[in-house]
Amino acid sequence: MAFEKMIHDAFEESRNNSRLGDTTDEINEIKEYIKNAKKIYVPNKNGIKVKVLNEVLNKYGLPEAEILQINTSTADTSRIPALAKAYMALDQSDADLIIARGRLGIPGSGSLLIFIDNKGRILTCGTSPSHPIHKKSLEQAVYEEACEALEKIGFDKRLKK
Amino acid sequence: MAFEKMIHDAFEESRNNSRLGDTTDEINEIKEYIKNAKKIYVPNKNGIKVKVLNEVLNKYGLPEAEILQINTSTADTSRIPALAKAYMALDQSDADLIIARGRLGIPGSGSLLIFIDNKGRILTCGTSPSHPIHKKSLEQAVYEEACEALEKIGFDKRLKK
Amino acid sequence: MAFEKMIHDAFEESRNNSRLGDTTDEINEIKEYIKNAKKIYVPNKNGIKVKVLNEVLNKYGLPEAEILQINTSTADTSRIPALAKAYMALDQSDADLIIARGRLGIPGSGSLLIFIDNKGRILTCGTSPSHPIHKKSLEQAVYEEACEALEKIGFDKRLKK
Amino acid sequence: MAFEKMIHDAFEESRNNSRLGDTTDEINEIKEYIKNAKKIYVPNKNGIKVKVLNEVLNKYGLPEAEILQINTSTADTSRIPALAKAYMALDQSDADLIIARGRLGIPGSGSLLIFIDNKGRILTCGTSPSHPIHKKSLEQAVYEEACEALEKIGFDKRLKK
Repeated sequence: MAFEKMIHDAFEESRNNSRLGDTTDEINEIKEYIKNAKKIYVPNKNGIKVKVLNEVLNKYGLPEAEILQINTSTADTSRIPALAKAYMALDQSDADLIIARGRLGIPGSGSLLIFIDNKGRILTCGTSPSHPIHKKSLEQAVYEEACEALEKIGFDKRLKK
Repeated sequence: MAFEKMIHDAFEESRNNSRLGDTTDEINEIKEYIKNAKKIYVPNKNGIKVKVLNEVLNKYGLPEAEILQINTSTADTSRIPALAKAYMALDQSDADLIIARGRLGIPGSGSLLIFIDNKGRILTCGTSPSHPIHKKSLEQAVYEEACEALEKIGFDKRLKK
Repeated sequence: MAFEKMIHDAFEESRNNSRLGDTTDEINEIKEYIKNAKKIYVPNKNGIKVKVLNEVLNKYGLPEAEILQINTSTADTSRIPALAKAYMALDQSDADLIIARGRLGIPGSGSLLIFIDNKGRILTCGTSPSHPIHKKSLEQAVYEEACEALEKIGFDKRLKK
Repeated sequence: MAFEKMIHDAFEESRNNSRLGDTTDEINEIKEYIKNAKKIYVPNKNGIKVKVLNEVLNKYGLPEAEILQINTSTADTSRIPALAKAYMALDQSDADLIIARGRLGIPGSGSLLIFIDNKGRILTCGTSPSHPIHKKSLEQAVYEEACEALEKIGFDKRLKK
């Protein structure tokens, strides 16, 4: 119940106006959660994203993800399609970590790759501009977003665990 | 009613499985919306973020933002504090563009700076790791997030309109 | 900008712990908004719900709604399908009032009929149990939910404006 | 993992346009979940609501709830304050069932009492108009909302389990 206590404490700090920003302990809790995840799912129709994500997870010494084959195209009608995909995976599986990628907001807003925990809480993210702006391959974009998400919370591929 | 038609069309493409990703036209609609915004608000208690944001908006030839003085500290109890702040501004003002910055997700997840329109739709964003990771000043972090958000949708400071 | 001020004031009261609950003035603002709505849309594939809703709106002396023909079946993958339908209509039209009906939560949780304004804020609602519990026709269920939603904010069919 | 499979199956039916509405099996799953809940929390500052809720739960032969003492007043700045309170409890505890009560939407929209599961999914709800409309005591309003929520999914106080 580590996150529950951490969220409770941060909330009390905010209420008392004594919150000074995220702490190293909080970041470490997120890292521990990801390192210890037993069921990591990536909601997707095909396996391309999962292949790239596993390449990245491996580089950082993290456990592998599995594909969760659900049709996520309906998520595009949501306000935050990437988050809608993550919640679809959360609601239809027993994952303790979900990595989902989709549009950030309205068409043209680019893409968002997010990590959520077993209650749907956001742990980290990576983003890319739309394809007409970055002109990268899907594989390259997913690769960079995943690295961004992991480095943002202090993972370092040179230190592979 | 440009976004309404654009969202409707993109949605139909998704339903028919003919959607190929964001288009240049969609990105241009977002740019036009931001260029033509009349009331740009930044929900905040003090003026630091607004000063930095206006520096950035100016560099890209965009109209200035104003501070919307509301206490947004309660947003920290939300799942996506940055978005909660943006919605607080949306619900309490007549803004047509809101730029809000706050935590991305749980404590430790870093920060998110988002642009939303007059209906609460996400147009673009920039993100930073938590302070213990990036070690930048608040000003520097806000500056870089705002540049990221604008360049993500094709604004270019060398071309200043 | 009536709601904006009202929301701002209520929020300040909550922060100061001086909020005593909803006021008659607030309820009247909601009634005025609904009475003066110019574009009332009901997202739906077919016209049955709209016919029943207009019967109800008419009984309370309120303006008529129009159907907004969009496929809302993808909303069923959302956490609150009724709200997802309402937002789909908000994002794809210039409505100033949207009346949407869909599932409340997970399968089995029954139905929710909600009224949202031009920014997506919830004004009122009516609910029904699932069909296996209430055994009413769709028409009857929609009729009763709409009456519940309107009477909840003080409309009275005997006083027809 | 009963809800996960149920949600997955209902979602597939929706996608294939073969969904005919909620089923008795789905309603029974919700009832079983509530009957078997081990940690039922009610986020609240004081104990009044919990006392009334336990009176109701007892009448229907259901396990008792406990108070989760967190300050939920910040939830009033959310779009759906009742749901925001429920999520605050979810994020700060190890509850498997949360019963939260708060405002439905904007000030004046009345109140909503919701039951959510350990992932934040809505199971059932009860609603009341604002106090100036119904003029009931807080205790009476909470009592009736809780009965509505339970009877909506087929609980019957005459059959006490």
